[in-house]
Amino acid sequence: MLFLTRIEHFNAAHKLYNPEWSKEKNELVFGKCANENWHGHNYELHVTIKGEVAADTGFVINAKILSSLINDFVLEKLDHKNLNMDVPFLKGKMCSTENLAIEIWKQLLPHLPEGVQMHCIKLYETPRIFVEYFGN
Amino acid sequence: MLFLTRIEHFNAAHKLYNPEWSKEKNELVFGKCANENWHGHNYELHVTIKGEVAADTGFVINAKILSSLINDFVLEKLDHKNLNMDVPFLKGKMCSTENLAIEIWKQLLPHLPEGVQMHCIKLYETPRIFVEYFGN
Amino acid sequence: MLFLTRIEHFNAAHKLYNPEWSKEKNELVFGKCANENWHGHNYELHVTIKGEVAADTGFVINAKILSSLINDFVLEKLDHKNLNMDVPFLKGKMCSTENLAIEIWKQLLPHLPEGVQMHCIKLYETPRIFVEYFGN
Amino acid sequence: MLFLTRIEHFNAAHKLYNPEWSKEKNELVFGKCANENWHGHNYELHVTIKGEVAADTGFVINAKILSSLINDFVLEKLDHKNLNMDVPFLKGKMCSTENLAIEIWKQLLPHLPEGVQMHCIKLYETPRIFVEYFGN
Amino acid sequence: MLFLTRIEHFNAAHKLYNPEWSKEKNELVFGKCANENWHGHNYELHVTIKGEVAADTGFVINAKILSSLINDFVLEKLDHKNLNMDVPFLKGKMCSTENLAIEIWKQLLPHLPEGVQMHCIKLYETPRIFVEYFGN
Amino acid sequence: MLFLTRIEHFNAAHKLYNPEWSKEKNELVFGKCANENWHGHNYELHVTIKGEVAADTGFVINAKILSSLINDFVLEKLDHKNLNMDVPFLKGKMCSTENLAIEIWKQLLPHLPEGVQMHCIKLYETPRIFVEYFGN
Repeated sequence: MLFLTRIEHFNAAHKLYNPEWSKEKNELVFGKCANENWHGHNYELHVTIKGEVAADTGFVINAKILSSLINDFVLEKLDHKNLNMDVPFLKGKMCSTENLAIEIWKQLLPHLPEGVQMHCIKLYETPRIFVEYFGN
Repeated sequence: MLFLTRIEHFNAAHKLYNPEWSKEKNELVFGKCANENWHGHNYELHVTIKGEVAADTGFVINAKILSSLINDFVLEKLDHKNLNMDVPFLKGKMCSTENLAIEIWKQLLPHLPEGVQMHCIKLYETPRIFVEYFGN
Repeated sequence: MLFLTRIEHFNAAHKLYNPEWSKEKNELVFGKCANENWHGHNYELHVTIKGEVAADTGFVINAKILSSLINDFVLEKLDHKNLNMDVPFLKGKMCSTENLAIEIWKQLLPHLPEGVQMHCIKLYETPRIFVEYFGN
Repeated sequence: MLFLTRIEHFNAAHKLYNPEWSKEKNELVFGKCANENWHGHNYELHVTIKGEVAADTGFVINAKILSSLINDFVLEKLDHKNLNMDVPFLKGKMCSTENLAIEIWKQLLPHLPEGVQMHCIKLYETPRIFVEYFGN
Repeated sequence: MLFLTRIEHFNAAHKLYNPEWSKEKNELVFGKCANENWHGHNYELHVTIKGEVAADTGFVINAKILSSLINDFVLEKLDHKNLNMDVPFLKGKMCSTENLAIEIWKQLLPHLPEGVQMHCIKLYETPRIFVEYFGN
Repeated sequence: MLFLTRIEHFNAAHKLYNPEWSKEKNELVFGKCANENWHGHNYELHVTIKGEVAADTGFVINAKILSSLINDFVLEKLDHKNLNMDVPFLKGKMCSTENLAIEIWKQLLPHLPEGVQMHCIKLYETPRIFVEYFGN
């Protein structure tokens, strides 16, 4: 069993704002992240898959294929977007890095080739904060 | 003459959009950066000053004082903001990294202590694109 | 279950020196790290916690609260200190990165909010050496 | 139980080419990586071992000893080499990063001191692709 | 005047070998870099241009256009290649990082848009060695 | 004219303390950096030299020779030392990063080979603060 990780980037705007709370409570809980006019991040995304090494290629997965899958099913939907406004699969959810990682997992999972398993979605919001999701 | 650089970070939303152009021309020129609902970045800011080394401290400038100046006159105005909507000193200007670097220079310049000169504002928009401004 | 990591830094002096050994044995085992006049490092600390994502915030833990806890119970006691001389919870222990990671775990553990579990203390001594402690 | 990681680097040439396939199939599967005249990488190697912390040193393993083992049994055989042509333990295998990680594990394993266990070989091929091997 | 830098990567094989010298002299001067079967690197390329900021775009140059130029006139010729064998503009020259930087400058210079000047080619051979060329 | 930079690291203890001042004034000016029991850093040193490229080697300077010079005349004197107590060329000077950069320049300058000029000593004290010295 080998684990392979591909690192990608995307840039997006978001805000942390619970519409069921008052503006005051949002600012109390989320501080500057609740700024109504949005802020944004350069997100760094690590997608880790696992599987057996194929004898004829030496690969668990061709990294170019993995990169294409990430591009088509994740980056196309998130890069240079407003996470709260532009992303159907985040509608109705808090746009935290935690939820974003979980939804990225769900977007990619159905598209992995046979014999390859998802292991981890790791997502940096800033160089000093990241989350990891292992599927449960 | 010694050069000292302090590195800081801020997160902000922006879009590249010239209001005198059609939506089509904006998308042609700025591509995904013209997304009307904004996107955003983790900006990395390098402020470089220069001056003589003081014999009694060994400092050109106390790095904590430089950090405070950057915080008060730059980060407070930019961090977790929408560059197009929330920042008075960017009003009426294209919110490019180039213009942002020039305006950061102007914000800091009047506040440097005597004997300390501004040398360079270096600003990363993404880990692979940065600009530098030397004051003219 | 989501994992969230907050990265912090501190600077400290230390030496590796076992007082029950001769100076010669200390130098044999620890080399330059046994220099009696100390040396030091910029330590990089990764604190990883785990828990469920709250529906109303999208958070496992508010990263600002985690950062405050690390600051109050770890950085305040270690930053710009001499690990051998200034830190009560390291008294009588070898000031290795291994022991430092274990003690940081112990300092933080009692202060985590309900529903949040410690997962890992990762500590870089230099950019090329780090340790990880998972609590047992 | 503590985990300690030592990071090392080596530079090598390689190509991805299955001699049982036609040139066309190799180019179809491996793309530019099949260039018959080779290409190369700065590989970044993370060796993670685990064990108990010794009371008299505070160490799981002396990092200098681990570094020497990596140098003698891995870097000496790989650094500034052609992975396909110069490395006996890769003969007859596809020179993928996956296989390289597995073989590095095998080279190091017999030489670890008593009480120290191998935990992970992590190997970056580029700053955006890495693999991990845990021994099975 | 503003300076803008775009960072790109390429992977290549090379060796340092002066064909007018004996094998012994090559090994004496170039050490492991003279390995006849090649070795290789992940090169990191920083291209810095300078110019005035246009009022209607806020750009010195559209970073996407600069990236395309680097891709078409540099990366296409160097990425996943053998620098000694596959690159016409390096024929007859020592394949040092110094000469590579100079030749990259020459490849890009004729293609810059009007009003944009080349300022610097910075090229990392490893994370700890880089060269800079300013055109003379 | 080509510029070549070699990056090295060293670890050291120091404190910022002017013996002509009271303890109170030292703490007022230097804050935590005045801790009498020392603190320390992982310093990252960039040595940049310049010169013409030799036709027979493609080198401005052999990077291994530059690395040896830095090791013999700088790292041997600073690595795993106490900058205030163990380093003859810093005696009587404030142990600031500024002064350290100037003294490193003086240590290396007499030993550069003919045809090679010193250009810059760049020294990181932490990942967010660095100084540069160009010799005057």
